[in-house]
Amino acid sequence: MIARRELQFETTGRGTYDLSHDIQQFVADSGIKLGMCHVFIRHTSASLMLCENADPDVMRDLETFMSRQAPDGDPAYTHTAEGPDDMSAHVRSILTQSDLNLPVDGGSCALGTWQGIYLWEHRFAPHSRRVIVTVQGD
Amino acid sequence: MIARRELQFETTGRGTYDLSHDIQQFVADSGIKLGMCHVFIRHTSASLMLCENADPDVMRDLETFMSRQAPDGDPAYTHTAEGPDDMSAHVRSILTQSDLNLPVDGGSCALGTWQGIYLWEHRFAPHSRRVIVTVQGD
Amino acid sequence: MIARRELQFETTGRGTYDLSHDIQQFVADSGIKLGMCHVFIRHTSASLMLCENADPDVMRDLETFMSRQAPDGDPAYTHTAEGPDDMSAHVRSILTQSDLNLPVDGGSCALGTWQGIYLWEHRFAPHSRRVIVTVQGD
Repeated sequence: MIARRELQFETTGRGTYDLSHDIQQFVADSGIKLGMCHVFIRHTSASLMLCENADPDVMRDLETFMSRQAPDGDPAYTHTAEGPDDMSAHVRSILTQSDLNLPVDGGSCALGTWQGIYLWEHRFAPHSRRVIVTVQGD
Repeated sequence: MIARRELQFETTGRGTYDLSHDIQQFVADSGIKLGMCHVFIRHTSASLMLCENADPDVMRDLETFMSRQAPDGDPAYTHTAEGPDDMSAHVRSILTQSDLNLPVDGGSCALGTWQGIYLWEHRFAPHSRRVIVTVQGD
Repeated sequence: MIARRELQFETTGRGTYDLSHDIQQFVADSGIKLGMCHVFIRHTSASLMLCENADPDVMRDLETFMSRQAPDGDPAYTHTAEGPDDMSAHVRSILTQSDLNLPVDGGSCALGTWQGIYLWEHRFAPHSRRVIVTVQGD
């Protein structure tokens, strides 16, 4: 059995967005009990990650880390057509994930207690982000 | 066909642990010859990677690199409840992998000659780490 | 249904190589319309990424970023047997991807408009790189 849907998420600009509920709901709706759930983002300036879901400070610290690691407006960049957050967004994307594959067990993604599924918007401006979710199994 | 098991690994603190043998053994036991093997770690302060398996210096150098990249006790971090290695462990995790997907061919993971499957414990203290292995195919 | 092939790519040394056409061709040839396509590189000094495919400046800027992030000949490294680009290549590999999983829809990988599949050769010298492609579905 395979269930697939493209979900759309409206971001309000740079930051992290918890997709856990939407993904788990789609898995539940699929009726698949044992298998895999695959999450794929169709963009190169936003990405996915599994991260600690209890303390919002973790997200703030990750943002601090990335801002320092891949500074906006870095004078070394030449791809600057869309502004200072254009190239830094691509760098952040390649350092994180475009796709996540998660075990489905008992009808939901078998995440650890502290794991959440996040979309990380790397652009300053709001964007509409398309995420393809695929659930396969029995 | 699908075979799944949750393996548990007891780490002795920060460092890399070679899981290749355990994973390959589970694939062999599954009887699946052609398909995929998925490895998933249910934590956000330990991660997975495929890495050079011949020279232990590689692991030491990776540790050196990460310690510099994501320093413990970084004064920029606010999520510090569990100590100086708390937030740095989350950063290291998002820069590496929580899940690996590997082709199974001829009854084992078709790794390259120099590829090993490693768990990277990012916390100083020993931890019990849960890893879900899924083998799918024929 | 499962289709698998090992593709071989001859690199001319450090740089990025667009595999999108070869991968999409293999998916088309497989006849599979709905499912997943998995791409796996059997090396630890070259990697895979999904990246912006329109402006070659992005690749140059990523190279600039990585050269600064993981400098060749870093005096902190001890694994130097194969030269100054040996250990830096391993670091670059663990910061990017060894495997990509992509949704197949309508007989091709459902990439975003600006997403391309790239092999990133991290060694200075030309190498022959083996990539296993697996397509599964109906």
